[in-house]
Amino acid sequence: MEQKHESSKTAGKPIRCRAAVARKAGEPLAIEEIVVAPPKSYEVRIRIICTSLCNSDIAFWKMKEPDGQFPRILGHEAVGVVESIGEDVEGLTVGDTVIPSILADCGECADCKSNKSNQCSKFPFEISPWMHRDGTSRFSDTNGETLYHFAYISSFSEYTVVDITHITKLDSTIPPNRACLLACGVSTGVGAAWKAANVEANSTVAIFGLGIIGLGVAEGARIRGAKRIIGVDVNPEKFEIGKKFGITDFVNSKDCGSKSTSEVIIEMTKGGADYCFETVGIPSLINEAFACCRKGWGKTIVLGVDPPESQYNISSLVMLHSGKSIMGVLFGGLKPKTDIAMLAKSYIKKELQLDGFVTDEMEFEDINKAFNLFLEGKSLRSVIWMNI
Amino acid sequence: MEQKHESSKTAGKPIRCRAAVARKAGEPLAIEEIVVAPPKSYEVRIRIICTSLCNSDIAFWKMKEPDGQFPRILGHEAVGVVESIGEDVEGLTVGDTVIPSILADCGECADCKSNKSNQCSKFPFEISPWMHRDGTSRFSDTNGETLYHFAYISSFSEYTVVDITHITKLDSTIPPNRACLLACGVSTGVGAAWKAANVEANSTVAIFGLGIIGLGVAEGARIRGAKRIIGVDVNPEKFEIGKKFGITDFVNSKDCGSKSTSEVIIEMTKGGADYCFETVGIPSLINEAFACCRKGWGKTIVLGVDPPESQYNISSLVMLHSGKSIMGVLFGGLKPKTDIAMLAKSYIKKELQLDGFVTDEMEFEDINKAFNLFLEGKSLRSVIWMNI
Repeated sequence: MEQKHESSKTAGKPIRCRAAVARKAGEPLAIEEIVVAPPKSYEVRIRIICTSLCNSDIAFWKMKEPDGQFPRILGHEAVGVVESIGEDVEGLTVGDTVIPSILADCGECADCKSNKSNQCSKFPFEISPWMHRDGTSRFSDTNGETLYHFAYISSFSEYTVVDITHITKLDSTIPPNRACLLACGVSTGVGAAWKAANVEANSTVAIFGLGIIGLGVAEGARIRGAKRIIGVDVNPEKFEIGKKFGITDFVNSKDCGSKSTSEVIIEMTKGGADYCFETVGIPSLINEAFACCRKGWGKTIVLGVDPPESQYNISSLVMLHSGKSIMGVLFGGLKPKTDIAMLAKSYIKKELQLDGFVTDEMEFEDINKAFNLFLEGKSLRSVIWMNI
Repeated sequence: MEQKHESSKTAGKPIRCRAAVARKAGEPLAIEEIVVAPPKSYEVRIRIICTSLCNSDIAFWKMKEPDGQFPRILGHEAVGVVESIGEDVEGLTVGDTVIPSILADCGECADCKSNKSNQCSKFPFEISPWMHRDGTSRFSDTNGETLYHFAYISSFSEYTVVDITHITKLDSTIPPNRACLLACGVSTGVGAAWKAANVEANSTVAIFGLGIIGLGVAEGARIRGAKRIIGVDVNPEKFEIGKKFGITDFVNSKDCGSKSTSEVIIEMTKGGADYCFETVGIPSLINEAFACCRKGWGKTIVLGVDPPESQYNISSLVMLHSGKSIMGVLFGGLKPKTDIAMLAKSYIKKELQLDGFVTDEMEFEDINKAFNLFLEGKSLRSVIWMNI
């Protein structure tokens, strides 16, 4: 792994560096020189080593104003090195290799102290355009115009400022182009299998949607020893990809004839899957997932979200008679500061596969290529190297 | 406890005895002489010692044809003594004190063998008018007309025939007028707190609906050491009754002013209850229960069922961001053959209170009085003694 000696020459001063700025919804990012202010209290400034492109970056890049906010620095799956620290920062020093996370982990609130929750009460999850504590930005362009943050991370920049509640110190023996995947999508899937569902050996799993989260679920279920992992998607190519991550059976939901997908899965499994995961957020798919999880003990985990107004309906009679449960969970139920490190260890022990998720690697100046590959459905994860 | 010597004089022969027959929806039961056939294979014939009146008896008694089926022998919370046994019956002998359960427990199917399910696959739950295995009745009136069974139990009769999958052998040191409560309502509530939710010490519980199931939940949560048990009902008298079973706070859902019940509970609990139980089955109440269970770890348990077509709606975004789960469960998640005995032991150890649930006791010929008390909202449980 690349190791640069971090100096304190820049500490306390603004840094001029390159960033890929999203100036308008759906338009190519512009590689620009920007100014990154020094970290304030409880913040660190990080030099990004590499970053990967996630669905949420795409979603917020496409989102027109007023919901989309521009100009903005997107990116949230990354690995970096601490360049300088603000006041009141404990446990992190200049030169530490770190990974940011979309969820905060303050370590002090009821949620962070509980082993049952991963939803920090002090800094609740939101895709904010500002820093947490003072509601301002650390980014501006060379004309002095403010640039918005994204999800408290904004890793499509050579330097960024992140609140310490979003930072996990990383064992540097894991390569950065694998570690960056642990910041969001893959972890969400693996976490959902391990923590939210607690998939058991020899169980049966059905996964609705074989994007990165769905494949992460498969990988998590494979490691847990699930005997059958059924992938559901409308794209049959996903089956070939999914096999690497343990998918044993494929159901094309466009190809079930007169039957519903849930009926097909109930037949295949003789009664339903022990665990169903919905990674898309479409109400009809959530209903299908719930319908084909095993009566008596089936768990359905909702990981996807489509339009905010999407509602799904469950009959109270069906619910009562089912003995089934359904739950929603962010980041797969993982607690960032402990569980990202746990996943990294699993990779080092050669349990957790990460290599197969990386389909492309490129230089920072080619970041728009990563967007195009994603939009064309040709990539799982593109890793973008900063090389500074 | 009354102990009669059971003779084999009647074994293998029809028995003439008294039963309270529901001849028409909503009309007083008729105490009639009926004929109870001998038990067939895998069945036992039971002399009922006492029985209590449950909401479901009332619901099916009110139900007009074609959903309601008449003439029928209702009743399903009871204690009895085995009078005779059919072929292939193992583990039960004449004279055993037994308690029937609404759920079957065959001990052989995947569900009965799993500690995660209480929904026998071989004999799924239904409110059948027939015996399980041959789809016929063991009851007729003296004119030879067939009388329908109810929920495989039909305890409003001096003698009844029950499939062995619905029979639990009981430690006879528990008085029958307490043991009968364990067959359905109270067990459903206590079981929901213990098995479905697994309520922890010092937790906060909200119970929507303070009928027998809701009070059973409170009793279960009280024994587990919940620090706050909030009862929600539209009848403030329920608070006084509920205090006996551990209810610490009362919310009258008609009396929340401009706030919703869930908003009031979120304020009271500074963020929501750890466990919410909905015992009525009304979709709006299920939504309220889910809304006020604690983000990050809250569990909502659906125990009630209103009209079969009732649907509740949940936003997939709300679900995803909640970290909460919702589940439906029959009989509180209890496995009849092991858990009814476990509850009986808890009563004998003076943990589980049952006495407070019995508000009236009466002779069999006064059974319609029990119906009237129930309809007037004046009883929790009336115990009806057969005295034969």
